[in-house]
Amino acid sequence: MSETLWDWGPEDGVLFSRSREGDSQKERLLEAGVTLFARQGFEGTSIRDLAREAGCNSSLVSYHFGSKEGLYRAVLQGHFDVLMENLEVLKGRDEPPIRRLVSVCRLVMGMHRRYPHLWPLVLREMQRPTDALTEMFQRAVACLAGYVMETLREGIRQGLFREDLVPEHGTLALAGMLNFYFLSEPVSGFLIPRGPETDEIYAQQVLALFLDGVRLPEEDGR
Amino acid sequence: MSETLWDWGPEDGVLFSRSREGDSQKERLLEAGVTLFARQGFEGTSIRDLAREAGCNSSLVSYHFGSKEGLYRAVLQGHFDVLMENLEVLKGRDEPPIRRLVSVCRLVMGMHRRYPHLWPLVLREMQRPTDALTEMFQRAVACLAGYVMETLREGIRQGLFREDLVPEHGTLALAGMLNFYFLSEPVSGFLIPRGPETDEIYAQQVLALFLDGVRLPEEDGR
Repeated sequence: MSETLWDWGPEDGVLFSRSREGDSQKERLLEAGVTLFARQGFEGTSIRDLAREAGCNSSLVSYHFGSKEGLYRAVLQGHFDVLMENLEVLKGRDEPPIRRLVSVCRLVMGMHRRYPHLWPLVLREMQRPTDALTEMFQRAVACLAGYVMETLREGIRQGLFREDLVPEHGTLALAGMLNFYFLSEPVSGFLIPRGPETDEIYAQQVLALFLDGVRLPEEDGR
Repeated sequence: MSETLWDWGPEDGVLFSRSREGDSQKERLLEAGVTLFARQGFEGTSIRDLAREAGCNSSLVSYHFGSKEGLYRAVLQGHFDVLMENLEVLKGRDEPPIRRLVSVCRLVMGMHRRYPHLWPLVLREMQRPTDALTEMFQRAVACLAGYVMETLREGIRQGLFREDLVPEHGTLALAGMLNFYFLSEPVSGFLIPRGPETDEIYAQQVLALFLDGVRLPEEDGR
């Protein structure tokens, strides 16, 4: 395979639908939403803030999105759409289990690097779930986590991974290693500086750790 | 060793100093602070809220803690003190590296179970660090993370762990697996229910994963 192991990032970098002439205000509002919701949270951001950041009239929030919640929903949906599109690409490749795990790691870490506002948004949802959005969010988590769990199950079936691995737990452990690295940056940044180069080393360490952890020991003789 | 692997929880369950007659209002304010700061954040909690929750007069916040920030600082300090006391106990035992990692896992997961408000508090600090408290927080992280890093280095020195393990990264990976399990509960709870029994299985899986991941393969012959 000619691609490097960690050529960062999702295949499709377009967060929101491409610009058509008449949509520029809508897109500016989406961009404003990404920035402000991540920084101030849903409740801490007013329609007036959004309009000011986007440089347009407050009434356009309702016009384009129905409400502040509609804009928030569109912002999260934009991120999840990219994630889901990339996941579909991975699924389509139908790679063997270990290669699938490598690809998932790259996808998750690539999403963090390319969309640094996603994680603060997700964190806020984790702390104070907003009713209407929990479903959307759980759907995305279920898709991604479901893919990893299925991969682990397949690896167990093929005799590659240990039989005593609990796929749900393995998935959560992998998610923890990948997400916490970015999540903890504000407080662990003094331990490990972040950047493409460090990310790459970290990703390789996590993958080595995880794969050696789940793989059936060869000397085990089973 | 007669203790079970996961006899949950820090050795010392006292979050704030034990009650003396005159301190009951102070303690009620601390308890109110734990609850409200975790739920509403530092900025979203008023002195009036704290006094109401504690069932006392607003002026007592200033009297006992100087300010709302003083109370917040005392709340975080109470948690970190327990963590540090337990860490000192572990250090005093001077166990071999693998046993130390087991103990650290038990300590971290035990803190989560015993002090469920700690994590929301820490998360809020991660998202919007409050100036005066960053230092306190970083000190605690540095102590705990430093202990794990030193343990990994010692394991490498003793030929137990792989030479290519980056101790900083291994520490962050372990922290991710342990903390994310609790952190993600609001959105991954539908995948994995939480409770003492599931926690125990998860902890064992994480430890097996991590130790097999960092351990030098025996057949490697180095």
